[in-house]
Amino acid sequence: MIKAGIIGATGYAGAELVRILMRHPEAEVKWLVSKSYVGERFSSIYGNMFRIIDEDCLGEDLPQLAEEADVIFTATPQGYLSQLLTEEILEKTRMIDLSADYRLSDVSVYEQWYKLQHGSPQLIKKAVYGLCELHREAVKKTRLVANPGCYTTCSILSVYPLVAEGLINPATIVIDAKSGTSGAGRGAKTANLFCEVNENIKAYGVATHRHTPEIEEQLSLAANEPVTVSFTPHLVPMNRGILVTAYASVMDELTEEDIRIAYEKYYKDEYFIRLLPAGVCPETKWVEGSNFVDIGFVLDMRTGRVIIMGALDNLVKGAAGQAVQNMNLLFGLDEKTGLELVPVFP
Amino acid sequence: MIKAGIIGATGYAGAELVRILMRHPEAEVKWLVSKSYVGERFSSIYGNMFRIIDEDCLGEDLPQLAEEADVIFTATPQGYLSQLLTEEILEKTRMIDLSADYRLSDVSVYEQWYKLQHGSPQLIKKAVYGLCELHREAVKKTRLVANPGCYTTCSILSVYPLVAEGLINPATIVIDAKSGTSGAGRGAKTANLFCEVNENIKAYGVATHRHTPEIEEQLSLAANEPVTVSFTPHLVPMNRGILVTAYASVMDELTEEDIRIAYEKYYKDEYFIRLLPAGVCPETKWVEGSNFVDIGFVLDMRTGRVIIMGALDNLVKGAAGQAVQNMNLLFGLDEKTGLELVPVFP
Amino acid sequence: MIKAGIIGATGYAGAELVRILMRHPEAEVKWLVSKSYVGERFSSIYGNMFRIIDEDCLGEDLPQLAEEADVIFTATPQGYLSQLLTEEILEKTRMIDLSADYRLSDVSVYEQWYKLQHGSPQLIKKAVYGLCELHREAVKKTRLVANPGCYTTCSILSVYPLVAEGLINPATIVIDAKSGTSGAGRGAKTANLFCEVNENIKAYGVATHRHTPEIEEQLSLAANEPVTVSFTPHLVPMNRGILVTAYASVMDELTEEDIRIAYEKYYKDEYFIRLLPAGVCPETKWVEGSNFVDIGFVLDMRTGRVIIMGALDNLVKGAAGQAVQNMNLLFGLDEKTGLELVPVFP
Amino acid sequence: MIKAGIIGATGYAGAELVRILMRHPEAEVKWLVSKSYVGERFSSIYGNMFRIIDEDCLGEDLPQLAEEADVIFTATPQGYLSQLLTEEILEKTRMIDLSADYRLSDVSVYEQWYKLQHGSPQLIKKAVYGLCELHREAVKKTRLVANPGCYTTCSILSVYPLVAEGLINPATIVIDAKSGTSGAGRGAKTANLFCEVNENIKAYGVATHRHTPEIEEQLSLAANEPVTVSFTPHLVPMNRGILVTAYASVMDELTEEDIRIAYEKYYKDEYFIRLLPAGVCPETKWVEGSNFVDIGFVLDMRTGRVIIMGALDNLVKGAAGQAVQNMNLLFGLDEKTGLELVPVFP
Repeated sequence: MIKAGIIGATGYAGAELVRILMRHPEAEVKWLVSKSYVGERFSSIYGNMFRIIDEDCLGEDLPQLAEEADVIFTATPQGYLSQLLTEEILEKTRMIDLSADYRLSDVSVYEQWYKLQHGSPQLIKKAVYGLCELHREAVKKTRLVANPGCYTTCSILSVYPLVAEGLINPATIVIDAKSGTSGAGRGAKTANLFCEVNENIKAYGVATHRHTPEIEEQLSLAANEPVTVSFTPHLVPMNRGILVTAYASVMDELTEEDIRIAYEKYYKDEYFIRLLPAGVCPETKWVEGSNFVDIGFVLDMRTGRVIIMGALDNLVKGAAGQAVQNMNLLFGLDEKTGLELVPVFP
Repeated sequence: MIKAGIIGATGYAGAELVRILMRHPEAEVKWLVSKSYVGERFSSIYGNMFRIIDEDCLGEDLPQLAEEADVIFTATPQGYLSQLLTEEILEKTRMIDLSADYRLSDVSVYEQWYKLQHGSPQLIKKAVYGLCELHREAVKKTRLVANPGCYTTCSILSVYPLVAEGLINPATIVIDAKSGTSGAGRGAKTANLFCEVNENIKAYGVATHRHTPEIEEQLSLAANEPVTVSFTPHLVPMNRGILVTAYASVMDELTEEDIRIAYEKYYKDEYFIRLLPAGVCPETKWVEGSNFVDIGFVLDMRTGRVIIMGALDNLVKGAAGQAVQNMNLLFGLDEKTGLELVPVFP
Repeated sequence: MIKAGIIGATGYAGAELVRILMRHPEAEVKWLVSKSYVGERFSSIYGNMFRIIDEDCLGEDLPQLAEEADVIFTATPQGYLSQLLTEEILEKTRMIDLSADYRLSDVSVYEQWYKLQHGSPQLIKKAVYGLCELHREAVKKTRLVANPGCYTTCSILSVYPLVAEGLINPATIVIDAKSGTSGAGRGAKTANLFCEVNENIKAYGVATHRHTPEIEEQLSLAANEPVTVSFTPHLVPMNRGILVTAYASVMDELTEEDIRIAYEKYYKDEYFIRLLPAGVCPETKWVEGSNFVDIGFVLDMRTGRVIIMGALDNLVKGAAGQAVQNMNLLFGLDEKTGLELVPVFP
Repeated sequence: MIKAGIIGATGYAGAELVRILMRHPEAEVKWLVSKSYVGERFSSIYGNMFRIIDEDCLGEDLPQLAEEADVIFTATPQGYLSQLLTEEILEKTRMIDLSADYRLSDVSVYEQWYKLQHGSPQLIKKAVYGLCELHREAVKKTRLVANPGCYTTCSILSVYPLVAEGLINPATIVIDAKSGTSGAGRGAKTANLFCEVNENIKAYGVATHRHTPEIEEQLSLAANEPVTVSFTPHLVPMNRGILVTAYASVMDELTEEDIRIAYEKYYKDEYFIRLLPAGVCPETKWVEGSNFVDIGFVLDMRTGRVIIMGALDNLVKGAAGQAVQNMNLLFGLDEKTGLELVPVFP
């Protein structure tokens, strides 16, 4: 059994890691670290876990935890891990970081978008960007996984094949994303109160959202040239789910068949990516609670654009599920182990 | 492997059976019967099931299905099964009926509350009321399980020990129940449109709801005398979940400890019943997607009443989960097989 | 024009006062006091008010405000006003207090339920309990109105006539109440985050909710004997609305007609109380945004109980609307002035 | 008093017309026509209207109604009015049509997008497109107003000034729109059930939505050249509200100030259009229940695009409110009469 620790276990992503790992046949959660709830019973905070997990929350001690844990998940604020991580720790354990600290290869881009000084830039090159479907082989060999952001996973997977195959003009990509509210975290902020979110929709972080450079770096790799995108997130009155609607201009003469072939080239053996039948639009409810990404598209020759839609559960494929998928890769397990979750509907 | 058929597979309860059975290690869904969608791909109706189940919906033919299936679940309208079921069918297969047709021992009570003529009253005495925690041994021996209603399961389990132990006055029981909207089914009715339900709460079926006699029959068994209760259901703007708040007058001198002892007497070995710590009120979100029933209570000596609260997921323990629990009993499996579902939060 | 000040203007009840008073033909909001937002533009906090009201929030100075305002509304935490109010202030202005400080005639009951020491118990007897339909004449003559709580208004108005007429046994009253989340206020608490409330229902404050003694005091006046009730509030995933479902045992031989006559005796000339036709259950959506209370009932002779349902908008008739209704009474205006708000549906 | 009739009064837009006109000081609703509910009390369908309006629903008889009504609103399915309207009717009354029948100047475009044959193409040129802020003077002189669609109003008003002033490249316009569910109407369809919409978001009508040509026609007028746009609507789990997020490439050297000047040139005297302060993103909740359109924008020189956001209440400015605004223009009233509705929050 893989002995796992979770730092930041009482945030929504951390708690989702607990939910998934509780039923993982090859792993067990041994340490639940939560600065805010040290000494409290985890199930007193997450009542759903009553009689399922009986552990108390522990205080932070990364070096000590590294001695004992086979893998440590950090579901912590940006900047936390970069301040603490060392080569020594990485020699003792494997790290899967759900924050952004090691996602961007260029530390200056990180510092510019996150307004933080990076604490361990020398470790960035040791990290692998854990978008499993794109970097599977590299993940298998690393000890430090930079688990991608929720918006990012959905955005990149939705458009990657069309960029990589040169079917769309990368300079024209517009990504309009909609997220459930669990993506905003469990912090007690007025803006995230029920009455402020319910019956409401708004954009936020327009032109400044931190997932933008992450999307751009990966799409630039696909395009083999620098790609800049417009990315706009929106807050939707629902708990879980991200829907991405992406727009891009296509070559003349492109057909739906061409597009489908491109997607199948990259994804036809991917269990977690479901390319929907023609004319079917993804719905976030269809992936809720699961590690799937559903992708659909419409080619609109009237405007010369393709409209691509992708949906995932931000806490699963957008966070904890993908982190477990990465863990499976790190430890040589079947990638689906513990992740064959059937979406819950309704 | 148990070969299972589901009649009424495209309603919410039927689809939840599919979700649960897809991951059941000892059973497989072989037949999906849906009158409304014959010949259509199941996953075209429930997009969440895309690439998980590839079956088409079949037309109804109970006698034929009985030849082949080890167990048949009927998630059908009231009166459907009572018209079709015969001794011959029961000799060939096992039936788990999610409708009310065989739940009430007195056919006249059925006909009075349901305004239907019962098609096979002679089979009622062959049926066992499948509230597993109360009738486990009888279920193991039957071939016809009357799977309880959602409100009923929550109401009965919440108050049963206190009635059975004589700690409350059964004549004073008031049950105020609140349900998510999936309990209203998937039929296209104006009253269940998003805009009619959202941002709204109302009572309905006041003093006439059909789950009332079912609650009363079981509590009468517990009390060993006829029990009549006030039962009022309410429609809540959420997908899943039932919360029951029950009120009853208690004996003088009763203590919280007395009540806790009564609950533990009946439930301490029950995996699916979680008696919450003192002072903790159940929340439907804590059981969502799982087969748990959470129960809490407050003794209010100021008014001489105990307030009991119970929560479950109406589609799981209130329907499909309990049906699978019954299947496990019928086939001699561990009752928890395929049902160790961790509640999804948030 | 009545010059009004609001202390606590940036809470939900305070902001609702602004919304209503902005269209009141005889009053104008001149002072918006908010400790948390001094110097900030009110419309930067409540974006709905952009270009409707251009005032900045002011700091607290009750004595100074009393010099200038004709009426002051306090939508403040329990205990705030009781510490500051004096006879001198009441000589200069009229106070409508939306907190509980002057609602209970017995200061020891207040201190027991609220765990607070009352700062000005000698003023309690000067206050009138501002449930307009019951205490209209007294309100007209006072200078200090104790505006009732939201649950209280709904609970009392729903059962008052039946208690006053002796049609129900007051010892058997059980009140099960359900509230939208704006009743929990705008404070940044984890428990009120969208993801914690949405898709969830729970009871809270069971047997200890502070609105209980307020209900009991008023019903005791109606019954002319001490009345004790079971009162259980629930949190519902919607912004606005309270639904009360009340249960009580009735006399033998009572008829629906008897009950209807009792309601009409008290309410037939009340604009804001709508007694629904037989068989119609109130829905909170039908009163949203308005000052109405809708009441319906079902007589269930099978159990010997009447089930009474009442619905109101907790921010309007349950807070700001009733406060304006009281203001209208204080200043000799038609009670409906500025309050003929048509409910918003859907 | 203007005597108004509403055909299609029991749909959501029709009922919203009733709500607004009930408090309009210069108009009264005299006829409520509803094919589905002839003879039923309107308030038995819309419980919010109980004791506010006591009329029964009438059957359809447009010629007779035209004899008596000063103005007739048709909130009817596409194609209804085009089959019935004649010059004679227009001589006797004024028509405000909330359907699409007279919105498009080119009947072939109508027939292509709506898959309907137009019943009275000769009347199209008599109609004025009732987007009041753009066609105010023409509306005053017509007898037939084609009231714009909800998505359309929000989309056009959001980008019109930038197109008209040549600040954006019209060939690059992408409009990503999100709507509450009341826009889908009150018909009993499975796809609009609570459980299908709640906790879900999806795109629909991708590249084929019928509001597209309406947007294009008006923007082409602004641009003085044919404009083609990508328009994608999404269904959001909320009752009311539309948010439009529009993207377009801008000229080099453009500044925020240039954009603000353009908006102010067109809208600075418009009561119903609120241009938000820099950096503030519109939220649908801020306009709920009101006739406002809130507009904000972000200039992103990194990508060379402006991101424009517009929000309105689809039933008010997107339907009934704008229809009343048009009525006010038709009858020479102040455009704001009866429409100074303060948005309801939360």
